[in-house]
Amino acid sequence: MTLIVQKYGGTSVGSVERIEHVADKVISYRNRGHDVVVVVSAMSGETDRLLGLAKAIAPRPSPRELDVLLSTGEQVTIALLSIALDKRGYASRSYTGQQVHILTDSAHTKARIQEIGDKRIRADLEAGRIVVVAGFQGIDEHGDITTLGRGGSDTTAVALAAALKADECQIFTDVDGVYTADPRMVAQARRLERVTFEEMLEMASLGSKVLQIRSVEFAGKYNVPLRVLSTFEEGEGTLITYEEVQMEQALISGIAFSRDEAKLTILGVPDRPGVAFSLLDSVSSANIEVDMIVQNIGRDGTTDFTFTIHRNEYDRSLELVKARAQELGAREVTGDNKIVKISLVGVGMRSHAGIASKMFRALADEGINIRMISTSEIKISVVVDEKYLELGVRTLHDAFQLDRMPASIKPINAGFNSVSAHR
Amino acid sequence: MTLIVQKYGGTSVGSVERIEHVADKVISYRNRGHDVVVVVSAMSGETDRLLGLAKAIAPRPSPRELDVLLSTGEQVTIALLSIALDKRGYASRSYTGQQVHILTDSAHTKARIQEIGDKRIRADLEAGRIVVVAGFQGIDEHGDITTLGRGGSDTTAVALAAALKADECQIFTDVDGVYTADPRMVAQARRLERVTFEEMLEMASLGSKVLQIRSVEFAGKYNVPLRVLSTFEEGEGTLITYEEVQMEQALISGIAFSRDEAKLTILGVPDRPGVAFSLLDSVSSANIEVDMIVQNIGRDGTTDFTFTIHRNEYDRSLELVKARAQELGAREVTGDNKIVKISLVGVGMRSHAGIASKMFRALADEGINIRMISTSEIKISVVVDEKYLELGVRTLHDAFQLDRMPASIKPINAGFNSVSAHR
Repeated sequence: MTLIVQKYGGTSVGSVERIEHVADKVISYRNRGHDVVVVVSAMSGETDRLLGLAKAIAPRPSPRELDVLLSTGEQVTIALLSIALDKRGYASRSYTGQQVHILTDSAHTKARIQEIGDKRIRADLEAGRIVVVAGFQGIDEHGDITTLGRGGSDTTAVALAAALKADECQIFTDVDGVYTADPRMVAQARRLERVTFEEMLEMASLGSKVLQIRSVEFAGKYNVPLRVLSTFEEGEGTLITYEEVQMEQALISGIAFSRDEAKLTILGVPDRPGVAFSLLDSVSSANIEVDMIVQNIGRDGTTDFTFTIHRNEYDRSLELVKARAQELGAREVTGDNKIVKISLVGVGMRSHAGIASKMFRALADEGINIRMISTSEIKISVVVDEKYLELGVRTLHDAFQLDRMPASIKPINAGFNSVSAHR
Repeated sequence: MTLIVQKYGGTSVGSVERIEHVADKVISYRNRGHDVVVVVSAMSGETDRLLGLAKAIAPRPSPRELDVLLSTGEQVTIALLSIALDKRGYASRSYTGQQVHILTDSAHTKARIQEIGDKRIRADLEAGRIVVVAGFQGIDEHGDITTLGRGGSDTTAVALAAALKADECQIFTDVDGVYTADPRMVAQARRLERVTFEEMLEMASLGSKVLQIRSVEFAGKYNVPLRVLSTFEEGEGTLITYEEVQMEQALISGIAFSRDEAKLTILGVPDRPGVAFSLLDSVSSANIEVDMIVQNIGRDGTTDFTFTIHRNEYDRSLELVKARAQELGAREVTGDNKIVKISLVGVGMRSHAGIASKMFRALADEGINIRMISTSEIKISVVVDEKYLELGVRTLHDAFQLDRMPASIKPINAGFNSVSAHR
């Protein structure tokens, strides 16, 4: 007997027909003898409809009342799914965040989970019931309704899985797993049978929006095995796991990219302590997020700075930085908002040298000029001109042979096939 | 400083614009220095929409889940009203039934209130906030969401007023009070400034559907002054009060009627103990409600029975009674489904003789034949042919001069004018 927590997003429960489909899917797991706890989002469109009502009254509705309002979306879904399960002869109980005591802080519209009560759920599971829980919502210490922010249902599912010590947390979505690269860009892209939490975190932060980044952090922290699967297609999906169980790790798990980048370069900055801080502070105190930062030694006791920001912030940042650079006596400020970032991600990098040089050579062979480089322990990112995005991604996918499954890797969900309803 | 509990029904909060109008209305009372607790229903149409979703999945959804589903309707309204109040600079807090701890029994979809927590509400009122509470819903001892049945928001308002010892419970609706007769039928009908709870109960049970009968019972039981007012028009409405403060009571408060009546007569029933029970049991054990019951002495040691039922149950009742009458050896069963009931209601009847004979004479003068008579302490009902309904109501309205305010009655809300926002 295995305990699975499943999460179905707004698109998966977007209509009465889809809710019935989800009921069938849940039952297919129940029928294999698993205990199932289901977390659901609001039906797609419902959150926007409710938000529209609130904004028709006040442009900035009170966050406390917004949470009271929006939390009704998931409450509708849990009731409907439970009704669909009951109709099929499967006893079930639905619970709001308040009812299962998902205790959060009081940061309305972006609350964080602090504690989860498991008593009612355990009693229901012992009585053979399927438990349906409203995602996205909780309650604070005053008894006020809170929400976790958009995408918070993923976090609810992971937190529940951690609290219940579930064997697996399954996130059902409209893609069937995590790929070596965006399949719309690289025809040979391969679905990964597994990635590590660290890789998933890097990919999520790089724009591969399969999972909400907070839920991945949460899963990593509590060591909850997380699986991404499709609601609409059969398949094993991708398992995201904390442990590196394999002896030999694949060098590279995937290639992620981010389109909407821009960069600013400040040339000839006097090389004094506090200068770097002063330059970054000019943008970050305007709440503009800085991503990559590179500092080179310049000429004549000066230094050159480059950093990247979101393309939407380009004009404002340029203005702010120019003002500060003048105060500091820098020589020149230049910028470029037609750049993109391409990243190789893989925990195997840790133990393998030469990956960076192989990456740079592959790009150079195609005439792609690298404008910036940044590395972390499991990621190498390069900034290139926008026009080279597709070529760059495909080139790297080929160079690292990501279309082929590494010979050293055995199918990793062999030990977990019993969980899967689709063989 | 007076504490008022106000209730606004589904039509009153049927759109964003109407919710804004309700906010203005609430504030007009707050601005006169009153503490205000507002109870709201779901936006009109919302309950039906939700019910439609559930029924699209299962024809008979589980009552527990139906309550989880339907209770979201009021939750949306409380948030929107609170947002509208906040926008106008009036601090407010919204609460679900669960949050104010409206404890009910576990009879899902038709639960009864057992207890109400007043702690949070009192703290908010002391802090100068307007409190907005979801009507129609509560929570049982297990923490499961319950609903009070259609129209239950009236009951929530009255129960809250009783728990908070409010000075007045105001039910805002789409009529501007209780009338001496249906104004669509009698042009001279006059709005009553006040009626007693007993009169209101008789009128409600006779088809004057201004208030839900349970809320009137509740208000009477806990001695909560209840006022019916219009959301859309200015006015004092009608005060429903337990105490008969006036020295001299109006003889008659109003004329109520019920259209959908039918009657069955069993002639020549052997006059033995248990016969009455046996005849009634034939219909009541089929869950058909019997209203008036009249027994006359017949001829030759037999007795004649007549009773009325809802017109929709006529055919089925006739069949059931015929079968039982045959077993009992009765002579004949006849029926009529083209009858109506007209009633005079007034607590003044208690101390005044001659009202019944005045009523019968007035009807006889117009050639209206009375087919059945039934009396209670504060009501006289007659059954007449359907075609005489309008004539009968108008005749009685004239005969008892209900268009004129009794000379002995002073304007009764003189002592309570300060509560009213509309002078």
